[in-house]
Amino acid sequence: MSEAARQGLVICVSGPSGVGKGTIIREVIAQRPQIAHSVSMTTRPPRRGERDGIDYHFSDRATFQHMLENAEILEYDLYCDHYYGTPRRPLEQTIATGRDMIMDITVPGSLAVMNAFPECITVFLLPPSLTVLEQRLIRRGTETEENLRRRLQKAREEIGMADHFQYVVVNDDLQETAQRILHIIDSEHCRYHRIAGIEQTILAR
Amino acid sequence: MSEAARQGLVICVSGPSGVGKGTIIREVIAQRPQIAHSVSMTTRPPRRGERDGIDYHFSDRATFQHMLENAEILEYDLYCDHYYGTPRRPLEQTIATGRDMIMDITVPGSLAVMNAFPECITVFLLPPSLTVLEQRLIRRGTETEENLRRRLQKAREEIGMADHFQYVVVNDDLQETAQRILHIIDSEHCRYHRIAGIEQTILAR
Repeated sequence: MSEAARQGLVICVSGPSGVGKGTIIREVIAQRPQIAHSVSMTTRPPRRGERDGIDYHFSDRATFQHMLENAEILEYDLYCDHYYGTPRRPLEQTIATGRDMIMDITVPGSLAVMNAFPECITVFLLPPSLTVLEQRLIRRGTETEENLRRRLQKAREEIGMADHFQYVVVNDDLQETAQRILHIIDSEHCRYHRIAGIEQTILAR
Repeated sequence: MSEAARQGLVICVSGPSGVGKGTIIREVIAQRPQIAHSVSMTTRPPRRGERDGIDYHFSDRATFQHMLENAEILEYDLYCDHYYGTPRRPLEQTIATGRDMIMDITVPGSLAVMNAFPECITVFLLPPSLTVLEQRLIRRGTETEENLRRRLQKAREEIGMADHFQYVVVNDDLQETAQRILHIIDSEHCRYHRIAGIEQTILAR
């Protein structure tokens, strides 16, 4: 299966806030460093220690808006008057070399990516229960009671969007969830339509 | 993901003669004994030591033909005047308990199963090359030169049918191929449509 021309996959990992997307993706990449992590683009100025192209692609507002108009941003959000988005080009360049790319993305962001890039693999992470999700949000300790209530309400709505995703994984164990995502990636590489014509290569050997 | 009502999967493993279907399936089951192996039905009389329901479901001709007419046989073949086929009921009973069932099946048999049981997962095993396949058939040592030539020609035609299958795995290493099939099974269990409604269960917890 090591045909050189094979294209990499884009894997969209989403789920409600607090479900552990970031942690899971770090674990997936720790277990398989060949997988690239999609870096967001932002118009917010870099904070101390943040590196361009690693933490974010930093951009000015005019460039970002120009890219938006040219469909070079797959999905974006405006937060505290700064744009945050997923640029299309680095993603296309990465998968063209055969490397898989994984992205940590909000539920609305995922829906936008599905439209702009329908060949992506979409995985929705579910918490084992709403109670567990609530405890995780409380443990972060950054929430006022009012904020927590709003976040939980949003999580409830987002969990109801699971049916827009191809795969659903209940995140009750970091290692297991990371393994499941790796297995999904491996299996998707075995789908006939992704390696169509491989049988002709075999017949010619 | 251990919802009790979840249905098992049917996994059809196919490929040209000599590719190693039987060996791979034994390895898959050795690694995960919870997976059941589909037992064929035949009208050939039992040989010494063969056990009914384990090596084959033994049946008389009238019963087999009656089952054929009632669509209780998913696929069948006639060989040396004896029927060989896959009965539907044991398969449906097994997956209803949530247990996965794997079957070793010819390429034409697979196409019949896809029609009769469209929810099955189909995996096509490819040899690393035609040369390797030829060597494997020669090593079996049971072939005349004429037979070998005919088998290879048939293998060529069967390999050309890979595009009818959902997944394709190149069988160049027993352990790796068995692992790939297990990963495909695990991933298919995470497909949203197989666990639709799980998000409501989570929301109620």
